[in-house]
Amino acid sequence: MQFSDQARAAKDASRSLATASRAVKDAALHAMADALAAAEEDVLAANARDVSAAEESGAAPALVDRLRLTPARVTAMVDGLRQLAGLPDPVGDVVRGWTNPNGVQVRQLRVPLGVVGIIYEARPNVTADAAGICLKSGNAALLRGSSSALQSNTAVTAALRRGLQAVGVDPDVVQLVAGGREVTKEMMAARGLVDVLIPRGGAGLINAVVTGSQVPVIETGTGNCHLVVDATADQDVALGIMVDAKVRRPSVCNSLETMLVHRDIAAEFLPRALAVLAQHEVTVHGDADVVALDDRVVPATEEDFTEEALSLDLSVAVVDDLDAALAHVRRYSSGHSETIVTGSVRAADRFTAEVDAAAVLVNTSSRFVDGGEFGFGAEIGISTQKLHARGPMGLAEMTSTKYVVVGDGQVRG
Amino acid sequence: MQFSDQARAAKDASRSLATASRAVKDAALHAMADALAAAEEDVLAANARDVSAAEESGAAPALVDRLRLTPARVTAMVDGLRQLAGLPDPVGDVVRGWTNPNGVQVRQLRVPLGVVGIIYEARPNVTADAAGICLKSGNAALLRGSSSALQSNTAVTAALRRGLQAVGVDPDVVQLVAGGREVTKEMMAARGLVDVLIPRGGAGLINAVVTGSQVPVIETGTGNCHLVVDATADQDVALGIMVDAKVRRPSVCNSLETMLVHRDIAAEFLPRALAVLAQHEVTVHGDADVVALDDRVVPATEEDFTEEALSLDLSVAVVDDLDAALAHVRRYSSGHSETIVTGSVRAADRFTAEVDAAAVLVNTSSRFVDGGEFGFGAEIGISTQKLHARGPMGLAEMTSTKYVVVGDGQVRG
Repeated sequence: MQFSDQARAAKDASRSLATASRAVKDAALHAMADALAAAEEDVLAANARDVSAAEESGAAPALVDRLRLTPARVTAMVDGLRQLAGLPDPVGDVVRGWTNPNGVQVRQLRVPLGVVGIIYEARPNVTADAAGICLKSGNAALLRGSSSALQSNTAVTAALRRGLQAVGVDPDVVQLVAGGREVTKEMMAARGLVDVLIPRGGAGLINAVVTGSQVPVIETGTGNCHLVVDATADQDVALGIMVDAKVRRPSVCNSLETMLVHRDIAAEFLPRALAVLAQHEVTVHGDADVVALDDRVVPATEEDFTEEALSLDLSVAVVDDLDAALAHVRRYSSGHSETIVTGSVRAADRFTAEVDAAAVLVNTSSRFVDGGEFGFGAEIGISTQKLHARGPMGLAEMTSTKYVVVGDGQVRG
Repeated sequence: MQFSDQARAAKDASRSLATASRAVKDAALHAMADALAAAEEDVLAANARDVSAAEESGAAPALVDRLRLTPARVTAMVDGLRQLAGLPDPVGDVVRGWTNPNGVQVRQLRVPLGVVGIIYEARPNVTADAAGICLKSGNAALLRGSSSALQSNTAVTAALRRGLQAVGVDPDVVQLVAGGREVTKEMMAARGLVDVLIPRGGAGLINAVVTGSQVPVIETGTGNCHLVVDATADQDVALGIMVDAKVRRPSVCNSLETMLVHRDIAAEFLPRALAVLAQHEVTVHGDADVVALDDRVVPATEEDFTEEALSLDLSVAVVDDLDAALAHVRRYSSGHSETIVTGSVRAADRFTAEVDAAAVLVNTSSRFVDGGEFGFGAEIGISTQKLHARGPMGLAEMTSTKYVVVGDGQVRG
């Protein structure tokens, strides 16, 4: 099918979904879950073909791992859909409302965005997760997965659509968009048919969509996150947060990439920090002050401070004062999550006020910046842009609003 | 100065403005007002040069009128700045907040967007209005006015910057962007320096920015607004709303462009409506049913239903039922403000639920869809897009948010 036909079908189907009750949407989510569970064998077989093809073409092991589905991963997708059914429905929520002096009543209600395009890389579990989040928030989903996962995504989407059909919901609210690179271009040009694009994946993909799209985009995910250890920091707290944010799951966007240590505390803190990092097999890329302390420290390059490592590598620098720390963060931050450990109210206040990021943290770990940890129940991604949504995006962030204005004949005159 | 230098200066200046207290911003607004009032003579002289040049070049009278400043219009600009000083500051407002079970406290605060680019057409009063709204919401403004208003805008901007300097605020938070078309292109490519672009003007300008910009855009203003007169409508109410929405100020975006009349009421209602419209010198462009009723009715073209007239022209059609009315609105609406007059709860509910627009109105005039009428105190425009803000945009809509997360050593583990 042509992309434009798919998009038009999505737009048409999105209209009835927009006014569907929560009961209808929750029934659809359970039916999608049932159908996906029933299709586990098909899905795993399709995935095995994708994985073989990727291995034969010499794909990196990390990519093959992201591509691979297991019975446990399929179960997680099924459970994710059922959990969405248990969440409150944001559609219809009254954001605010008032009555004008002339009696005209104004309410601002949450409504679905309409048609949401998700452009993503290898992970086939995104297919079910994104379809479910879109459905619960009343949006049709156009799912543009990568060609390496085409067989898997086709099998998953077919199952989800069977579930929708089983409960009488137009299956065109969930569609897989297949085809070459030109289809991504068509998606990015589909103003009026696609209401928003959300790219999920590496920095290259996100940048290509953000700069190339005429459809509004929500930028997600790049996290070059800093930890500032202030002169007045509780060192044990700083060490705990450093390990939590760097080591537990280095490949995620809210993990730590650079630690900046105040010179007044460096001589005492850094040897302790380097010892702990060594225990956790973290490679430290340090500035001259840090290199001087320990043979294991690799000299840091400009790239080390600029790029997300997403691995057990940590850039470390000594800063003369809070101003220098703030200047470093301003220069290199991707605007995701920035943390200070400090005992000073003044330093905490300056840091939270002056750092321009989706989340600023004091004396706690950036790993808490997450839709699940925020209690959103589901997350489509973490927005690092300033328009529409910033930070973890749950169901409410997948909606727009509409003013409903009711009178009994009032005119402005 | 090069645009990139201006944008960098704006970005730098925006940082201290972002953390400025309301008292500082209000003092700046009053100082801007004082300086603009003091510069009235200069501003009017500069404007006279723009007006002469426009007249000599054969510009349309409507354009010359939009371009022309008078002492009253300058006073309105000055008063507008002072009124902004009286409004609450959205920056720092807590949108929501909670404490996690582990004691981590999360607050979502309003913060400025950063650097806002306004691209607008002839009206020089936008220069002061937009600068003031940006300043109050903590944003630096890059004002890209039209070349026809360059002298006026230069004089206004110089005055505003003198005011800022007088109270010690970096004047680079208000800058006029001059130069040819290539400068607009630079603005639209300035990702990372400009946080959002807001085009204000005709459909051509808005479309060019919306499709050409890599910087996020807020689309404003196009209003192809409908009035549906249902079978159960109170006819006097319908006539009153029709006149209010069409006649009072036809050039604004929330004015009425097309009226759709239910066939069951058409024979009685339309002759009354046509008589009232004739009294107000409105040219009616009707479908075959309407043309048949009155010699003064011009046959409506597809363009009449598609375009905003912004004049004393009204397209009128008879529809067989509410479904036909909804289908017409769906096809032609620009998603601004759509109205139904009805006595039926069922029809009102269907209309408000199914029509996809920034505002849907029942038994009252679309002219109420306005920042002033909504009590926002100031309005940068009316958004017709779904992301970030939809409908009248006041000061809160000129902000983003930031999560402030505070703990005492908690880690996720």
